[in-house]
Amino acid sequence: MSGARLLARLDDLARIGPIDGGGSCRLALTDADRDGRDLVLTWMHDLGLEVTIDAVGNVVGTWSVGQGRPVMTGSHIDTVRTGGRYDGNLGVLAGIEVIETLMQAGLTPPRPLAVAFFTNEEGARFQPDMLGSLVYVGGMSVEEALDAPAIDGARLGDELDRIGYAGSHPCPAAPPHAFVELHIEQGPRLEADHKRFGSVTGVQGISWQEVTITGQSNHAGTTPMSLRHDPALVAGRIVVFLRDLAARYGGDQVCTVGKIDLVPNLVNVVPRSATLTLDVRNTDEETLRRAEAEISDFLNRAANDEGVRIETRRLARFEPVVFDGRVVDLVEEVIAGRGHTNMRLPSGAGHDAQMLARVCPTAMIFTQSHLGISHNPAEFTEPADLVEGTDILLEVMWRLAHTDFDERLDTRVDKKP
Amino acid sequence: MSGARLLARLDDLARIGPIDGGGSCRLALTDADRDGRDLVLTWMHDLGLEVTIDAVGNVVGTWSVGQGRPVMTGSHIDTVRTGGRYDGNLGVLAGIEVIETLMQAGLTPPRPLAVAFFTNEEGARFQPDMLGSLVYVGGMSVEEALDAPAIDGARLGDELDRIGYAGSHPCPAAPPHAFVELHIEQGPRLEADHKRFGSVTGVQGISWQEVTITGQSNHAGTTPMSLRHDPALVAGRIVVFLRDLAARYGGDQVCTVGKIDLVPNLVNVVPRSATLTLDVRNTDEETLRRAEAEISDFLNRAANDEGVRIETRRLARFEPVVFDGRVVDLVEEVIAGRGHTNMRLPSGAGHDAQMLARVCPTAMIFTQSHLGISHNPAEFTEPADLVEGTDILLEVMWRLAHTDFDERLDTRVDKKP
Repeated sequence: MSGARLLARLDDLARIGPIDGGGSCRLALTDADRDGRDLVLTWMHDLGLEVTIDAVGNVVGTWSVGQGRPVMTGSHIDTVRTGGRYDGNLGVLAGIEVIETLMQAGLTPPRPLAVAFFTNEEGARFQPDMLGSLVYVGGMSVEEALDAPAIDGARLGDELDRIGYAGSHPCPAAPPHAFVELHIEQGPRLEADHKRFGSVTGVQGISWQEVTITGQSNHAGTTPMSLRHDPALVAGRIVVFLRDLAARYGGDQVCTVGKIDLVPNLVNVVPRSATLTLDVRNTDEETLRRAEAEISDFLNRAANDEGVRIETRRLARFEPVVFDGRVVDLVEEVIAGRGHTNMRLPSGAGHDAQMLARVCPTAMIFTQSHLGISHNPAEFTEPADLVEGTDILLEVMWRLAHTDFDERLDTRVDKKP
Repeated sequence: MSGARLLARLDDLARIGPIDGGGSCRLALTDADRDGRDLVLTWMHDLGLEVTIDAVGNVVGTWSVGQGRPVMTGSHIDTVRTGGRYDGNLGVLAGIEVIETLMQAGLTPPRPLAVAFFTNEEGARFQPDMLGSLVYVGGMSVEEALDAPAIDGARLGDELDRIGYAGSHPCPAAPPHAFVELHIEQGPRLEADHKRFGSVTGVQGISWQEVTITGQSNHAGTTPMSLRHDPALVAGRIVVFLRDLAARYGGDQVCTVGKIDLVPNLVNVVPRSATLTLDVRNTDEETLRRAEAEISDFLNRAANDEGVRIETRRLARFEPVVFDGRVVDLVEEVIAGRGHTNMRLPSGAGHDAQMLARVCPTAMIFTQSHLGISHNPAEFTEPADLVEGTDILLEVMWRLAHTDFDERLDTRVDKKP
């Protein structure tokens, strides 16, 4: 395959919606996203792929050879506001490179190969994230998706029309034979453990809640400690409790307080309220539920101790996704067979692959992310890893095209609550 | 005296710069502040007071009777953005009421009586707070004060010129014979302890610092706990530590974290940085220093434990102010003599009186503040307490006018670091 061609295409795509530091801003269905889509479509058409666009703007380019349902790869090309160069883009352009390489080598698989990019994976402009792939597998109706409001007030369906990507291909689509997605890790585990590639076992379950603590705003100088009902104190106790919980649980358990807003947020005022978010993830649903129950108990105790009111609002809840063990094993086998170090690991972030896992045998390949930095122009993966990761993807897709699954086995389905 | 006249004047002043809920917004040296000043000057002139304005806009109305230096009272009429009706205003209008009452009763004190309002007490538009009284006692040069920049970019001297309050009276001024200020408590202690009035023993020392914690921003899902350098966690630990410190120290010790800012402040991102403010107060300078040292040690330990960098910036530091014991005793005696319950207590907030305490025997009288609410339109003191507090002020001023102090004794001076 041509590493130079792959890297040049990554560069070309990154130059659309450019931001300082070499990253991109292509929020879903903006003009920049349209320009990115147009460019990728050019490459698909140049290869002679059969390109379909569905009602929510998912684009699939299919090399219609052989028999049966396609082996599909893909990802997304929308970005967050401060997007890097590889998140999503790599998985799409690697898929095109795989097909182009096989075509040029005169190697024809026994099944069609397809490469897709799905609409609004990031969720930075429309909620929910992974909207396109969710609709693609029938997890959300087209109507509901088209009505999704943007953070800027626009409606998803109107924006699709505006940029010319409201297609007519049936949606939900017929399930592929299998799906495999190449993506940067967006985390530090491969690098920290000196493993070059990862075979991804699934996606962590996610529990997001917003906690609003209402106390009594008071003067910081004149209010004795014994008369305080301080939301900031309770917020601090929650942050410390979550870290302790993660330490007690160990394993894949992660807990994060990423957002804290005090009101009025002044040096000399005991705040009236504190609003914070809790992000709690685990690969095991039972453990995740146990964490949620412990947190709920702690919130009640902390509220009583300080004499404040606590309200919680669920922001998101996804059960863990378990990828198909046969595809995970195949990915691991290909990585090892090519002489690379490998780690089996769950994804901490959400990916389109988790939606495809509902309807076909699915797994993912991770490349290292330097320092785990992502959603940032400083996102970096060694070029050699981008290229070799694409070769791994090629081999995995080629072998999947030669595999017959008994699809009643081992295909786990995540349930959206 | 006329309670109705006092309350009517409080109403009249509150209607200048009105805000929802019955409060006022008269940020220092704005048009609203000018209109408030003009109104109070009208009342001073109507009484035939000799009115002086100095170079930083401090206004003093003097009833020039008797011999020697005046017994002075006063406060401020500037407000925070969400000011209540009584903070500052009460002390100024009560002073006018005291003089008018004595005049009408034909009672002439053996010394002049003066009522002042000082510029920019709140510090809501210009830094530092209590600027006018600080300059009045020679604690800051006129030049430095005139150059103080407003939060809106204006310069204090220019704003004084613009509203017509750049006066020519000498500044710093000759020290008064004594100073006593009537003010609402702005805290809950009197009400919580069922005491009607307070004789104020001094002002708590204040240590304000801003703590900036810099860690490593990471994806909340993909970054194992062991690889995190989380500024939000350290912020949480600091909040909890401060509460524990206050509990250990007891007494008047108060600690507050009123402001926390995470960057980027997103649910699924371990923050890159956290900036928080620490407000630590005590009436004893040695204890305050011990608290600062303990906090500094804790910050170092917390930074090491989590692998983050911590920088601190001093925002403000005032040593405790101790009012003149003779004046405090006199205030207590007058309150008790009139049959009221009394509490000796320090002020947790700063007041102009603490600047006057540098140059003459000084104390304060507190009225209850309902629920301790202040800097808010919901600020409330019973009208009967406003009126009776003014009667207490009258008696204290009257007796001070008949007192000769040996001013080398018992007049403590606070030192600005």
